[in-house]
Order: sequence, then structure tokens, then C-alpha cells
Amino acid sequence: MATNGHLPESNIDVLIIGAGPAGLMTACWMAHCGVTTRIVDKRNTKIFCGQADGLQCRSLEIFDSLGFADRAWKEANHMIEICMWNPGPDGVIRRSDRIPDTIVGLSRFTQSVIHQGRVERWFLDNIKKYSKDTIDVERGVLPESLDIDKEKVEDPSAHPVTVKLRHLSDEEATPEQQIKGSKVSDGLFRSSLIYEDDEEELIRKSSARAGTAEIVHAKYVVGCDGARSWTRRALGFELQGEATDFIWGVLDIIPITDFPDVRMRCAIHSAENGSLMVIPRENKLVRLYIQLKEVIPDATGRADRSKITPELILSAAQKILSPYKIDYEYCDWWTAYQIGQRVGTNFDAHQRVFLAGDAVHTHSPKAGQGMNVSMQDAFNLGWKVALVSKGIAKRSILSTYEGERRRVAQDLIDFDHRFSRLFSGRPAKDLMDAEGVSMEEFKEAFLKGNMFASGLSVNYGPSVLVAKAADAIENGGLNGSSSVGISADAFAKKQALAPGLPIGMRFNSVKVVSQADARPWHIQEKLKSNGRFRVVLFAGNILDVEQRKRVEKFCEALDSPTSFFHTATPSSAPLESVVEVLTVHSSKRTDTELLRDFPEILHPFDPHDGWDYDKVFADDETYHEGFADAYTKYGIDKERGCVVVARPDQHVGWIGEFEDFDGLQKYFEGCLVLSPKA
Amino acid sequence: MATNGHLPESNIDVLIIGAGPAGLMTACWMAHCGVTTRIVDKRNTKIFCGQADGLQCRSLEIFDSLGFADRAWKEANHMIEICMWNPGPDGVIRRSDRIPDTIVGLSRFTQSVIHQGRVERWFLDNIKKYSKDTIDVERGVLPESLDIDKEKVEDPSAHPVTVKLRHLSDEEATPEQQIKGSKVSDGLFRSSLIYEDDEEELIRKSSARAGTAEIVHAKYVVGCDGARSWTRRALGFELQGEATDFIWGVLDIIPITDFPDVRMRCAIHSAENGSLMVIPRENKLVRLYIQLKEVIPDATGRADRSKITPELILSAAQKILSPYKIDYEYCDWWTAYQIGQRVGTNFDAHQRVFLAGDAVHTHSPKAGQGMNVSMQDAFNLGWKVALVSKGIAKRSILSTYEGERRRVAQDLIDFDHRFSRLFSGRPAKDLMDAEGVSMEEFKEAFLKGNMFASGLSVNYGPSVLVAKAADAIENGGLNGSSSVGISADAFAKKQALAPGLPIGMRFNSVKVVSQADARPWHIQEKLKSNGRFRVVLFAGNILDVEQRKRVEKFCEALDSPTSFFHTATPSSAPLESVVEVLTVHSSKRTDTELLRDFPEILHPFDPHDGWDYDKVFADDETYHEGFADAYTKYGIDKERGCVVVARPDQHVGWIGEFEDFDGLQKYFEGCLVLSPKA
Repeated sequence: MATNGHLPESNIDVLIIGAGPAGLMTACWMAHCGVTTRIVDKRNTKIFCGQADGLQCRSLEIFDSLGFADRAWKEANHMIEICMWNPGPDGVIRRSDRIPDTIVGLSRFTQSVIHQGRVERWFLDNIKKYSKDTIDVERGVLPESLDIDKEKVEDPSAHPVTVKLRHLSDEEATPEQQIKGSKVSDGLFRSSLIYEDDEEELIRKSSARAGTAEIVHAKYVVGCDGARSWTRRALGFELQGEATDFIWGVLDIIPITDFPDVRMRCAIHSAENGSLMVIPRENKLVRLYIQLKEVIPDATGRADRSKITPELILSAAQKILSPYKIDYEYCDWWTAYQIGQRVGTNFDAHQRVFLAGDAVHTHSPKAGQGMNVSMQDAFNLGWKVALVSKGIAKRSILSTYEGERRRVAQDLIDFDHRFSRLFSGRPAKDLMDAEGVSMEEFKEAFLKGNMFASGLSVNYGPSVLVAKAADAIENGGLNGSSSVGISADAFAKKQALAPGLPIGMRFNSVKVVSQADARPWHIQEKLKSNGRFRVVLFAGNILDVEQRKRVEKFCEALDSPTSFFHTATPSSAPLESVVEVLTVHSSKRTDTELLRDFPEILHPFDPHDGWDYDKVFADDETYHEGFADAYTKYGIDKERGCVVVARPDQHVGWIGEFEDFDGLQKYFEGCLVLSPKA
Repeated sequence: MATNGHLPESNIDVLIIGAGPAGLMTACWMAHCGVTTRIVDKRNTKIFCGQADGLQCRSLEIFDSLGFADRAWKEANHMIEICMWNPGPDGVIRRSDRIPDTIVGLSRFTQSVIHQGRVERWFLDNIKKYSKDTIDVERGVLPESLDIDKEKVEDPSAHPVTVKLRHLSDEEATPEQQIKGSKVSDGLFRSSLIYEDDEEELIRKSSARAGTAEIVHAKYVVGCDGARSWTRRALGFELQGEATDFIWGVLDIIPITDFPDVRMRCAIHSAENGSLMVIPRENKLVRLYIQLKEVIPDATGRADRSKITPELILSAAQKILSPYKIDYEYCDWWTAYQIGQRVGTNFDAHQRVFLAGDAVHTHSPKAGQGMNVSMQDAFNLGWKVALVSKGIAKRSILSTYEGERRRVAQDLIDFDHRFSRLFSGRPAKDLMDAEGVSMEEFKEAFLKGNMFASGLSVNYGPSVLVAKAADAIENGGLNGSSSVGISADAFAKKQALAPGLPIGMRFNSVKVVSQADARPWHIQEKLKSNGRFRVVLFAGNILDVEQRKRVEKFCEALDSPTSFFHTATPSSAPLESVVEVLTVHSSKRTDTELLRDFPEILHPFDPHDGWDYDKVFADDETYHEGFADAYTKYGIDKERGCVVVARPDQHVGWIGEFEDFDGLQKYFEGCLVLSPKA
């Protein structure tokens, strides 16, 4: 650490500003890929209750790829069913419908809820483990200035972003509510339901260097500092979109009620008193989203939040739920909000400073999307920054971040806009009531919204990372900065090889069985987040002589010195390549032998560990009743198979025949810096 | 703590001697039930590799009831298939059969393997959590004397067992191999595959009071101090049984081999070179059990262990596996053993000092039973000691420990004897080779052994805790000291109400759906190990008016002031009783309302938390493809239902009709100290 003037200076590969879910997800990627990283947050502790609480299926799949889905699955409340309540002919609310919360069969997981503080705990533990304690959130640290040296932005070895950081004193870093010691509050506070493994965090102090400043030179900076992002303002960017008139209150309580469905997710429209959403949570808690019809925005469109109290919110809930009663003794958290739907003007500056999460999209929290889309922004961005900063991937892949995520942000905003309007409106009295919201329309929107809300409908457009035809985008999303230039015809043929694995979407999971030990795995469990691309070789019927020859020819090409397969590895683990090859064959497992029937490169030999037994899988049903037939589900020819590339974030990037090795090579030449085998 | 003479003295409810799996399981019960407990071990650390490694389905179910099956399931290797290898007509070994390792559908879990040190880690963490840090293993502490005051053994408030403990110095408590610092050894040592969460343990020191002694007065003492149990010897008891001629070596290695099935569990009989068992393990490790034909026992029947080296064991393995090659660079642990099958003469002294685990049964480790049966001894004993020491249960239940577990020990010894003989024998050359072992017979034994080896066939005989007819024991096991005196006819009628839940066996699990929130649960997940009995009310078709009246009448009896339901609670948790009532109905879930259709006592109200939403379940298939039909699986009448009692260890204790409330009351009067509602 050199000193420049009076301030100490240092270099870092990646600096992350903000340690909420998006910042922690970014740090998590850096930990898994072994990138030197700092992450700072102006607050002095993590949060312990309240805030976001929804976990989509896709977020749980991502947690699984990072290694902590089991904690989430065990602790979170699983939401199974949604009950719709609205006024009957007598104006009294009654249950009109039940619909499944999560589309059955879409994922291994179901939508779940738990407060954001637990999600942060799992991230912190995971980052600690994978970074071997080298990455830890620095709390009470605030950025004060940010400069980009534009002449150096294209130099891979440069540190062109300079950030001045100030280390706050404890008092500066503590939110007001915490100092006042209020027991229940609308900000950061200490829940009486505090978890054991969080206790240590409570006694943490802010930075030991309180009051001092320092200069950091970073290769990359990621701003994950929320809706009022300092980083966004420092770059001169904005959020654009609509404000909203609706004001909502949020209560996290243990309810005392005779309402029958308080442990179901409920959407309740009262005849005249507004709407309410019930989200059953962990530890007997229930979150209520309550429309506050009595709080009127002033001329500027903002409501006077000082008039909003838990009592006022509860009273609104009681009116909506009438004739049922609701009350509580324990309140864990409460807040009120009035949020427009807005998207950032820019997602990055010079592909050196990036914005993720609420810094580039804000919307209402009711659909439980915010934390998920924020984490998924970072999940899209993190591995790209990691591989580029390590010199493994080309800088050109960085432009795909905005290309891929802006469309998701826009879809989110559109979804939220529709959903909020339908939910905030008065229910229509009858077919002629044009001002009211049709409850049938609302139910339809909910059912359609389920697919979007699962996070599994995200489909990235063509780019260096997604080998799609340029005109294959149906919904008008933005492209990445460059495309692999595939024709629509060629694309259709490739996609037809595995129609169940749409190029651009996340690798849908089915169960397969390990050839070596007959253990069943969801194939996604083998797509861990460690920065590696996977070539999934659907080897077809390997016991057929001609097919065997096709596989062998493909493997020879793979093993040639100029093949993409022989590049550097992104972490210190002694693995063969940044590209891992997994094989799924369709022959009968018990007729097939790993060592006899598969080329060595598919189960590589290591002088210390022997053969690799963890890379070849069979599409097998023995012992596993109800197992999916992987080839059938994916629509892959059981004799001929095909080759599928999964990106490090599990999205399908390329599909082809064995004979299209050149195309595969080109895909990797497009995104990786290829360094031939030594 | 008073001083008597020169030694400090103290009272404790339960003292556990030995902190292996049996001792830790005992401590775990005490932690979950809130019993003041000390646990001492003469060694100065837990173990870190080697030793036992098999986990039965039943052990995993028990771990789930304690809250850590998820850790086991994630870390352990799951064993799916067993391959049988034996000589072909040319004398060369070949795979002759594949059989499932675990009977499909028997349990939620499948047999798994991981070394004992990890199991101890999960126990230690669980004990720490549930005892709120009040129970922690005291290492380097050795018992020196044990006296029982026979005049006080029947006094529930007395501390009649006096034990003198000595606190060893670090050097005294460190096994020899550890001091020598050998890298690979046949005792306690530090694996290079050390787990992160074990690291802290490595730097632990023995007791701070090294060299000092103390006197402890205990209500109960449990000796879990292994095959050479000090406690057993102090009581003057013995192990009785046969010695064995067979000597086996054990190697935990990462194998380098061309043997095709090294990641399968294999039983290999060579023509002339002996037998070998392959157990694929966690972290690429494989355990080999290898018959050492060249090590000949001396005249006393013991072999010279100093001649046994890893090289000698490997060489034996190489001969058996020929023409396949096997070698290794990494060895995690090795040992050799020669063990007879023996059972303890006594399982307790005055029902004040108990012996569990290897202290009362020894046998060969090859079937992976030892750690399981030892933990299950303690799982049977722990809650009984906990409830009696807290004054909740009668002392008479303590005699059921030997009554129930001696038979299991004997079954284990018989199983091991048969299995070892078949496994150690030379394979028969043909049908006329009477001296050789028939490979068909071996396979049959393996298939039959699977049920026993799962731990799920245990069936406890009649006693105060198991309402069976005295003549209902088919296999001649010992009874508990008293029986509820039910006739064979009456017993048959009761069992016929739920033939899928055999009285005496563990409560078989099926999936049910929570009435309040539609979440699916394995019913076993609701039978947590917290010291509570469960009355599972199979309420039948609750929407039928007559059936509803039957349920209401049962609930009225349950709620009367003289009912067993109103007794003290074993832990500090504010729960209603040591008996919890769970309900499973067979009406259509979506036609049924928790608050409308079920008597209050089935979903009790709490002024702080509102209604209890976690006690009523439906036999429902919505959203859950392939869900079991609980009533059909259990054979329970869907209209009329029945009542089933699960003991705190999940074994079925009583079955009856709703109208047999008197019988149910008598069951609990037989085992509990009933204290009427205040």
C-alpha cells in the first residue's frame, strides 16, 4: 500500500459498493472464482429482520449452485397455494379461488419466503468459506469520489477506476432507529427473533480505521448500493419511469385472527376498503401488505410518512378483513412505501463500473421479485467480471450484462405495473362496472405472472455468449454488442437437437444417474458456480459402434492442442480447464462400463486421485421410481445425442451436433482468451 | 460444589462416560429434554478420520428427528447398488450380480457412509445448540471409581451413584500415535482431509484442571466407553460370546485402479486369495475390508498385530483383485482387527447405571452396523432416563431398555456371525464343493440382510411402553419387566386398525399435507425428538356428521382434568403437555377448514401466538404428484380412522379406537407420573 499525498493507496481487482443481496452475490462469485475483492457498506451491521422476503425458484437453484440452498430450503417457509378472496354478491369477502403458487414440475424448488437478513447470513458464511476468509464485508465504509481513467479502460491489466473511501465512526454508521433503541421500527433494527448464528454480527464494530480515508484503484467496480445508489449518481446516471399514487403499509406480525387462510398466500380485495396481501412466513410470522386508502399524497405526489404508524396500518387491515378479526401481540417489523416503476438509464460506464439491483430498477415489493432480480443481476454479471479480470475471458463479454439484464428489468417493471394496477383497484361490482377490476382478469394475471415470478422464464438474446439467430428474439429485447452471426435456419436446426433446452434460458434440470456409482443427481447439481463453462455431451447410445466412433472423433478434436479445452483455469483448483466436460449417455447403465466405453478425456486420470468418477452419467431409472427420462424431456435423439454448452451461470449458450466441433470452437474463441496447452 | 475430604463434590442428574456416537446420542437427548448433564471422555480430542463409517436409514431418520439429517445427507456418500464379484469357471473374478443396497421405498433415506468423526461433529454442534452451551464434552477426564448406594436406588430424588473423576494432563490424554506424529496410523490421528468446522477442535486442550480429581454424585450414569468399557468392568459385568479366527485389514484410500466397480459397494470372493469388501466413501475415499489370509493367529488365538502394515494389507487386496490393479498415493487411515461376536451379561445395574454401544456388544465392522446399533441403544435409553430424571415418567420404564435392546444386540451378533462366515469362506467351486460357500447362498443372505441392516426391522416386545399381547413376540425376544396385559385377541383387533403401523416398530413415514398452508411434510418430520409422546389422531372423514361427533367425544375426554393430556412438560418450552396431539384427516383438504371443523384442543390457542397451525394434516394429493395415500398405506379406515401413540423415539406404543380412551389413559398411567392440571 503506497501513500499518495496523505492518503494510503492500494490496488484491487474488484471493488463492490453495497453489501445487500446484489453486492453479496457479486462477492460470492469472486470468492468462488478466486478474485481479489473488497466489499464495503456504509451501514455498520447486516440487517436482522424485515425488508425483502421472497425467494423465487430460480434464486433457490442459484443458491444450490453456490452451495447453500439446503439452508434456505430448511429455514424458509414454502408457499404452495394462493387463495383469492373478494366480495360476494353481499359485499362480504369470501374465498373465490385457489391456485398453485408455483407451477408444478417447473423446478426442484417451490417459491419460498424468509427475511432478507437470513439470505445475507448465508451469503456471508459462503463468502467466508470460499474466499478462505479473504473477503469480508467492511462495514461503516463510504465511497466519496469515483474517477475512471478513460484512456486505460481497454487495457486488461490496468486499474482504471479510482475510488476514495471514508471509514465512518460507529455512530455515523448506525441508522437512527437503532440509536434510539426503538423495539419495532421501519428501518434497521434488532428482531427479538434473532438467529443464533447472527449474534456475533450484533457485536461487530465498524471499521477500525474510523474517520480515515483511503484511495483504491480497482480494475472493476460494481455498485450495488440500492435505489438511491451513490455510485449511480457519481456516474451521472438516473432511474426513469413513473411514480405511483398508491401507498402501502407492511406489517410483519404473529397474527391472532379467525381469518381462515392466514397461513396461505392470499390476495384479498375488499369491496370498498382496499386490498391486502397475506404472505405467511418463517417462525409463525405473517407479512401483510395493506393498501392505505386514508393516506393521501400531497401536491408533490408524496405522502407524509410521519403520520403512518403500525396502528394505522393494522386498522386498515382490520377494515379490509372484516368480518374476520385480526390483531397481534408481536410485531417484528413494519414499514410503508410508495414506489414508482423505474429503470436505470445506463447499466455500466465503460464496462468498468457496473450497477446492479435496485440501483437500476425499482418497483413495488408485493410480487416478491426485488431481491431475486437484484441477486440475478449480480449472478449474471459476477462471473463475467471474474473471468475477464483474471484474463480468461474477453472484455467483449461484459457488454452482454446490460444486453441481458435491461430486458429483464423492463419485463419486471411491466409485470409490476400490471400487477399493482390490478391489485390496487376496486373490484368490479358486475360486468358493467368498467372502473372496477375484474376478478377473473386478476386471477388470469396471477396465473400468467407465476411463470415470470418463478424467475425461470428469463431468455437471453443473441450475443457472443448466446449462439442464437439475431431474429430469434421474439419479444424485442436488446442484443449484446456482438452476435455470433448465426442464421435463423441454422439456429432452428440447432435448437431442434434439444428443444427442451432453449438456447438463452437456464439449463432445465432433470435427474440422471452417475455411471460409476448409480447415485441419482439433478443434473443442475453438477453445474456448480465455480466460473466454468460446461460442455454437456449427450453421448447417445454409446454401445452402438457407429455412435461410439462419432463420440471418439469429437473427443479427439477436444483433446487437440489447439482446442478451446486446453485453456487456463479460473481458480486455483487443479482442474483441467475453464471448460468442464460432462457426459450423459442413453445406453442401459448396467450394460455400460465407465472405463471400457468412454474415451479417457471424459473421465480424466490424475496420478494422485486416479480416474475421475464424477463426470459421466446415465439416463437410467433403476431404483428411482418416477425418474424423468432426460433424453425424452430434453427432446434429444437417444441414438445420436448432441452437444450443449452451459455458461457458468447455467444458461444454455450453444447447441450443436458432434460434427460441428468447429462451431463449438468458434463459440469459445468468441468469448475466451485461448491459451494453448503448455 | 462442596468439598469432602480434599476432593470437590457436586451433584448432577446424568453423567455420561465416553463421547463416541453412543455417548453423544445420550447427551443429545439430555440437551433436547433440558436435563443437567456432564459427559466426559478420556481422549483429548474427537476423532478426525477412520473408525466406523456406515449410516443406516434408521440412523438418518433419527438424525432428522434431532435436526441434522440434512448435514449427513449432504456430506455422506449414498450407497445405491451392491455388486457381487466371484470367480468364473476360469477362476478369474467377474461381476455376477447387482442388487440394490437399500430396499426401495423403505425409508426417505438410503444407506450412506461417512467417517465417524463427522457424525461426532454433527452431534457436538447439535448438543451445543440445544443445551444452550451448557453441555460440552469434557476431554481428558477419566473415571476412577464408581459406587451405587443400593438403599437409595428407588428414591426418585436421590443421587445414588458416586463417581470419582480424574482430569488428565494433555500428554496423558493424547494417544500414542498422535504424539509420534505419524501421518497415517491405526488409531486417532489427524487426517489431511480435515474439515473446516473441525479445526477449532484440533487446538482444544484437555481439562484445565489437569491432574486433579473430583467426586460426582449422579442420579444416573450411562457408560458408553466402548468394547473395553471401564464402566462395565467397574460393575463387574462381562461380554460373552465367541472369538473368531478371521483377521481383516482396513484401508481408507483414494484408489488408483482399473477395477470397474470401485465406486460401488462390492463383495468380492476370490478363488483362493480370500475376500474383499469395497465401501465407496466421501471425498473420493474408498474403504477396503481385506481378509488377511497370511496373518495366522498364535496359540492363544490372537494375531501379532505388529506384523500388519498398510503394505501387507494392500498386497492382500492386490491378490484378491487380480487381474485388476489397485494402488494408492493417499491413505487416510488403516487398521486391522480380529473380533468375536459378544454380548454383555448385563445392560444395567439397579437401573441407575446403564451400558450402551460397544460396551454391551462387539462384532465385525463389515456390515456397517456397529455405530448405528450403538447410537440406537442410546436413542432408546436417553429419553427414558431424561423423562424419569425429570419426574415425568415412572422408573418402571427403565427396565424396558435391556428388554428392548438385548434382543437387538443378539440379532446383530447372529447376523454378523452368519454374514462373516459366508463372507470369509472360500467360494464353492461347484455344487459338490461342500466346504466352499455357495455364492447363491451369499447373495440370498445379502438380500435378506438388507432389511436388518437398514435398522428398520427392529420390533420391540410388549412392556409398559408397548401395548402388545405377551404372546405377540414371534422371535423369542425378552419382555420388558411388566406388560399392559393385553390378550392376543384384543391385540390383533387393535393392530388391525392400522396394519401398516406395527406396534413395537418405528412409525413408518408417509407424506401428508398441512391443513393450514398446504405444505407437504413427511409425517416423521413432525415427530421430533424432544421427549414428547405423540397421540396421532387419524380423524377419518371429519366432514361426516357422525364421525365429527366421535372426534368431539374423544377430544372432550382428552380435555378432562383427569386426562393424561394434562401433565407436566419435560422442557422449558411453553407446550401444553408431555403428550402432543397431531391430527391426520381423510376428508378433502379444500373442503375442510381448520378453525371450523376441528375441536380447539387439536389446534390450541395461545394468547401471544394465536392458533396453532402446525398440528392438523390432510391426506391430500394436490400439487404433489406421486404422494402416498397415508390412510391406504397404513391400512386405516378412511371413514372411522383410529388413534396411534408414537413414543418419544418414534416407536408405535399403542393403537385403539376413539372409544377406547380408557385404554389410552391406562397406557399413559402405566408409564407417566400423572400430575393433574393446576
